[in-house]
Amino acid sequence: MDIACVIGYNGKQFNGFQVQKNKRTVQQELQTVLFDIFKTEITVIASGRTDTGVSAIGQVINFHVTEDNVDVWRLQNRMNAMLPSDVQVLKCYPVSETFHARYDAKQKTYAYNFYLSPFAIPYYDQFATRFSQNVNEEVFLKNAQMCIGTHDFTSFCASNTQVTNKVRTVSDVQLIKNGNLFTLLITGNGFLYNMVRIMVGTLVDVSSGKLNKTVLQVLESKDRTQAGFTASSTGLVLVKVEYV
Amino acid sequence: MDIACVIGYNGKQFNGFQVQKNKRTVQQELQTVLFDIFKTEITVIASGRTDTGVSAIGQVINFHVTEDNVDVWRLQNRMNAMLPSDVQVLKCYPVSETFHARYDAKQKTYAYNFYLSPFAIPYYDQFATRFSQNVNEEVFLKNAQMCIGTHDFTSFCASNTQVTNKVRTVSDVQLIKNGNLFTLLITGNGFLYNMVRIMVGTLVDVSSGKLNKTVLQVLESKDRTQAGFTASSTGLVLVKVEYV
Repeated sequence: MDIACVIGYNGKQFNGFQVQKNKRTVQQELQTVLFDIFKTEITVIASGRTDTGVSAIGQVINFHVTEDNVDVWRLQNRMNAMLPSDVQVLKCYPVSETFHARYDAKQKTYAYNFYLSPFAIPYYDQFATRFSQNVNEEVFLKNAQMCIGTHDFTSFCASNTQVTNKVRTVSDVQLIKNGNLFTLLITGNGFLYNMVRIMVGTLVDVSSGKLNKTVLQVLESKDRTQAGFTASSTGLVLVKVEYV
Repeated sequence: MDIACVIGYNGKQFNGFQVQKNKRTVQQELQTVLFDIFKTEITVIASGRTDTGVSAIGQVINFHVTEDNVDVWRLQNRMNAMLPSDVQVLKCYPVSETFHARYDAKQKTYAYNFYLSPFAIPYYDQFATRFSQNVNEEVFLKNAQMCIGTHDFTSFCASNTQVTNKVRTVSDVQLIKNGNLFTLLITGNGFLYNMVRIMVGTLVDVSSGKLNKTVLQVLESKDRTQAGFTASSTGLVLVKVEYV
């Protein structure tokens, strides 16, 4: 049968999702546990890789097992008991054999957690990135919303990528404020390499006056060098993957 | 001269604020650094102690130094360079010799960060408490707001306390929502021992149907045994201390 799981992980102690030789990765931890349970090698497919340091509260994976009647509730509890505390299964359910966590993903939502302060705030440093720039919140939000719609996101894509079609649709952008701590939520049909991090870096540069243009102008230039810096992976979280 | 600082710390690796023999505390770290800088023992006074595991993003301290013309900007930077990364100075300023961080505090704001989920979400576990109970958010907020006003908070006070007057005024309660992650903000003129944690435990019990009464009824009983459990210190943060 085929099984999908919603998983959460704290990216801090992982070298990203995807298996790499001699490095601790989320995929490796999952596959090790599944091997122990099913006594055979099982390859886990995710909705997409996440980079070193990136966390997830709603990553989706799928895998095939030869058994036909796996109790997914029991499986979830066994996996959680065997997995380390920084990667856990939040949901486990049977799927059709055609289900593919990556190909079938229709929308993803990322959160970027950051705080504004000239000095480090230790409690926030656990889970959010600090920006010491003098950010104008209104300008930040207004420019963030300029990403909504279908755009060529070449300006917000790391230059070392092999993807040729860089047109993506961002359907929603929201900013949740909690004092000087912010969560930027971005929903879209696909994300290019480092897209959220470059978007955030550009928003910081534009809203602090360092970049004297709008995000729309940066997008229209289709030129990575016109955008801002790549913000740190701390605070970047894959929140949700939608399949319908 | 007399100096006050706004400080932030991650409570995880501390046995609370106050100096205790052979234990790592925030006060000890601050006093060690001040001794190194001023070459004399300096006692730090805080707006109040915080317990083991409790963090702060706006604790206020004051202390006296024999020097008269300390450059507070330089002092802040020296302290931050010498302090461990889990306690840092966010602001440093001269105060009158009559200023007392505890006696002069007029209002404090605490945040309690929690998330609702039957399973552990590793990213959230870094900084928030998980409640697996089936909490009704509306009931939670409505009951939280019943704390606003001047009440005898005996029901929300750990029984092993020596404080006799348990009347306090809560001036504001807010709930910030970010998916299934919540921040409960409580502002008041004073907080009893474990008051926020018992308040949160009671709100969880009331809003999940375990306690079949309102927070107002619990308050009116003036009886700790009528309230709910004491919620974990994880996610409890001293946000702000106000002096005017």
